[in-house]
Amino acid sequence: MITLSLVGIGSGNPDHLTREAIRILESAEVILLPRKGAEKSDLADLRLMIAENILNGSPKIVEFDYPVRDANTPKYLDGVNTWHDALAAIWQKLISSHVSKEGSVALMVWGDPSLYDSTLRIADRLIARGMALNVNVVPGITSLQMLTAAHTIPLNTLGAPVLITTGRKLREDGWPEGVDTVAVMLDGECSFQHLDPSGVSIWWGAYVGMPQQVLIEGLLSEVGEDIVSTRAMARAESGWIMDIYVLRKSAN
Amino acid sequence: MITLSLVGIGSGNPDHLTREAIRILESAEVILLPRKGAEKSDLADLRLMIAENILNGSPKIVEFDYPVRDANTPKYLDGVNTWHDALAAIWQKLISSHVSKEGSVALMVWGDPSLYDSTLRIADRLIARGMALNVNVVPGITSLQMLTAAHTIPLNTLGAPVLITTGRKLREDGWPEGVDTVAVMLDGECSFQHLDPSGVSIWWGAYVGMPQQVLIEGLLSEVGEDIVSTRAMARAESGWIMDIYVLRKSAN
Ligand SMILES: C[S@@+](CC[C@H](N)C(=O)[O-])C[C@H]1O[C@@H](n2cnc3c(N)ncnc32)[C@H](O)[C@@H]1O
Ligand SMILES: C[S@@+](CC[C@H](N)C(=O)[O-])C[C@H]1O[C@@H](n2cnc3c(N)ncnc32)[C@H](O)[C@@H]1O
Repeated sequence: MITLSLVGIGSGNPDHLTREAIRILESAEVILLPRKGAEKSDLADLRLMIAENILNGSPKIVEFDYPVRDANTPKYLDGVNTWHDALAAIWQKLISSHVSKEGSVALMVWGDPSLYDSTLRIADRLIARGMALNVNVVPGITSLQMLTAAHTIPLNTLGAPVLITTGRKLREDGWPEGVDTVAVMLDGECSFQHLDPSGVSIWWGAYVGMPQQVLIEGLLSEVGEDIVSTRAMARAESGWIMDIYVLRKSAN
Repeated sequence: MITLSLVGIGSGNPDHLTREAIRILESAEVILLPRKGAEKSDLADLRLMIAENILNGSPKIVEFDYPVRDANTPKYLDGVNTWHDALAAIWQKLISSHVSKEGSVALMVWGDPSLYDSTLRIADRLIARGMALNVNVVPGITSLQMLTAAHTIPLNTLGAPVLITTGRKLREDGWPEGVDTVAVMLDGECSFQHLDPSGVSIWWGAYVGMPQQVLIEGLLSEVGEDIVSTRAMARAESGWIMDIYVLRKSAN
């Protein structure tokens, strides 16, 4: 059986690699690496930097291009599923031709492989296609942990629950029932603007853990607009942006 | 200003230390370490093992005893607050007597300091008591990430939210509105037993990341009782237990 390791590498700071992540990457027979240009290039740069400057020895790097995502597929989920299928086909071909029978192949996954990431689903597709794979997940620091660390805040209030959600869901459903803390990821449009801001605090961060990290915190009613404009400027300057935030309703 | 670093060390596996955690611990002037016996001793053992066998150099270790928690305080929160105050007083005394004026002191925090952990709240109390402290959070792998990695599952379903909550909350409120995935921590009594199990899957783990790790997964209706009895036996054998689980309702 081939072992496929999905290795969480943290969300921008190479110092967030764990000892286990380094060991698994160093001992892999092959590392599959998405090619630069296929995605936001600073992200591809970080992976390459890790492979070239942090790992000892020189694992064999095999680069690949991402399939193009079909935004025209009528239903969002179908588009994603088709894209995952295409990616699974690419991985299968590369693994079959570059990895030996009992060998190991690793992929560097942004943040942690469990959180809003598709690599586990793609690995499942490889197995469904008949590959004999042993899938191994190596946890990594998520962007949410980088955000709370950068702001030196706890995620939860004492003994209380936390909802992790997406920008889309926040827009569609508004403030969720029964929670005082909401963490929002995958938000392309500052969806907090759709909420009633009274009594809500926000801790926002873009490029967290990276050299260009930007942080803003405060009452949503006071800093919301500032975040919208800061985000637009940063995005225009870098050509891309990834941001994340925690919202909290004060008890009163 | 003294720098107080709250360093996430992961939840049982020393290989989950990040490069940053190691560097901060190695360069600290003093490491404050809760004394064995004060808590579940395997946890104290892991911290000591990290200090003695993993860190290079020999940072000065200062051990302390936990104050005794007052379970008789009528309101739960008051009990916790009093306990945090007592702990803050201990830290303040130790920092004042062992750390130099511009020095650095580190604490090893189980998992990640943002998640159901009190060290950030205690640090706030030190500042409220007038200490000039610069608080630095170093993220660590949470027990929830260890659980999903061990089971090789994603935390969320595609684009969907996830609620992180406690056993107490799950018992009080039942299955939360609007989510298909719930992660449960701090559950002393297998609170999933209070749910209607139909259509619910569970991925459970105790001592995740540690040598004695136990994992059970399946339909809640089929494995629920098995988890309850496995947990009771493991707890009797070890003298302590820490467990965590993810519940998911299948779409249908
Ligand atoms: C596809 S998800 C991947 C999340 C990743 N698996 C993790 O554990 O953080 C991408 C989303 O994560 C968040 N994100 C990832 N890295 C980030 C960073 N360095 N700064 C801010 N947000 C980030 C953003 O919300 C982004 O839309
Ligand atoms: C006080 S909270 C601390 C959580 C920690 N800060 C983290 O990031 O995982 C303790 C709870 O975390 C979970 N936990 C921590 N370590 C664990 C382990 N090794 N195995 C299973 N559950 C664990 C259990 O639910 C436990 O009740």
